[in-house]
Amino acid sequence: MERNEALKVVKEQLTDHRYQHTLGVMETAIILAKQVGADEKKAELAAIFHDYAKFRPKEEMREIILTQGFPQDLLEYNAELWHAPAGAYLVEKEAGITDTDVLTAIRYHTSGRPGMSLLEKVIYLADYIEPGRHFPGVEEVREMAKENLDKALIKSIQNTISFLLKKNQPIYPETFQTYNDLVKKLED
Amino acid sequence: MERNEALKVVKEQLTDHRYQHTLGVMETAIILAKQVGADEKKAELAAIFHDYAKFRPKEEMREIILTQGFPQDLLEYNAELWHAPAGAYLVEKEAGITDTDVLTAIRYHTSGRPGMSLLEKVIYLADYIEPGRHFPGVEEVREMAKENLDKALIKSIQNTISFLLKKNQPIYPETFQTYNDLVKKLED
Repeated sequence: MERNEALKVVKEQLTDHRYQHTLGVMETAIILAKQVGADEKKAELAAIFHDYAKFRPKEEMREIILTQGFPQDLLEYNAELWHAPAGAYLVEKEAGITDTDVLTAIRYHTSGRPGMSLLEKVIYLADYIEPGRHFPGVEEVREMAKENLDKALIKSIQNTISFLLKKNQPIYPETFQTYNDLVKKLED
Repeated sequence: MERNEALKVVKEQLTDHRYQHTLGVMETAIILAKQVGADEKKAELAAIFHDYAKFRPKEEMREIILTQGFPQDLLEYNAELWHAPAGAYLVEKEAGITDTDVLTAIRYHTSGRPGMSLLEKVIYLADYIEPGRHFPGVEEVREMAKENLDKALIKSIQNTISFLLKKNQPIYPETFQTYNDLVKKLED
C-alpha cells in the first residue's frame, strides 16, 4: 500500500492529535530505518498503522485478545498494551496488510519482546522519540538513537519501567524480558 | 535448634562483618514477626541461617543449583542470587534444619517470589532494613515497615529494581514477578 492511501485509511481511525503523532512516527521511523539499514518501506507502513486500533472500544480489543491467539496475560495488565496486538490483527483484517514483518512491528510496538527485529526496534523507538513527544528523558533517548539503537532502546525501556515503578503499577513481563534480553546482549 | 547453638554454627561460616549483619537481621526479624503475627522462633532461625552459604565458592553454589532441582535460569543472572537457594540446601544438609517454612524463607530471601508467606516477607525485609544497613532509601523502608509490611516490601523491591536499571544490569524474572504480585494484590 502506498503512503497516501495508507495515511487516508489510518486518518479515519484516529483523533487529529494522534494522526499528527503518527506522521511524526512515520518520519522518524524512515530516518532510523535508513540509519540502521532496516527496510524503509516496511518502516513507513508499520509506523503509519502502529496506532490503528488505539481508539477501538476496550471490549473489542479484549475480544480479539481472547479469540485470536494472543497471550491471555495481556488482559491482566494495563489496557494501554492492548491496542498493539489488536492493531496487528485489525490492520491485516481490515486494511489488508499481510506483510508479517510489518504486522509484527505493530504487535510489539508497546511491550517489546526478547529478540526484536531491527524493524521492530525502529518502530518502538520512533514511537517513543518522534518530534511531538515531550516528557522527561526523551531528549536523551533522541540523542542516543543517533549513535546506537540498542542503547537508546534500553534507555527508553528503563524510563518506562521506572515510570511504572514510581506509580506502583505492574509491569508487563514481556517488557522486563525485553530489557533483560537487550542488556544481556550488550554485555556479550 | 536453639539460638546460641544456631549462632555458633553460622558464625563459623561468616566473616565478622557478615555475622554482625546476621545478628541485626535476627533482631529485626523477631520484631517484625511479633508485629505481623508470624512465628517468632521460625523467624529467628531463618534469620540466623539466611546467609549461611554467602561465602561458599561460586563453583559449589553453581553445582548445587545444577543438581538439586533449582531453576536453571538462576545461573544466567547475578551470582549474588545463588547463596539463597544454595543456603537452603546446605542448611538442611549440614546443619540439619528440616522445617520447610524456614528453608523456604532462606531460599527466597534474595529474589522473593510471587505468593510469599508472611515468614518469607519478614526475612526478606529484615535483611533489607536491619540496623547495620546504610544506603539511600533504607530509612524510608524502615518507617514503612512499622506500618505495612507489604508496602515496605514493594518499596524495597522498587529500590532494588531501580538500582539494577541504573547499572544496566539484568533483573531476575522472579524479582519482578514478586513486584507485580505484590502491587496487584495492593490494587485489589
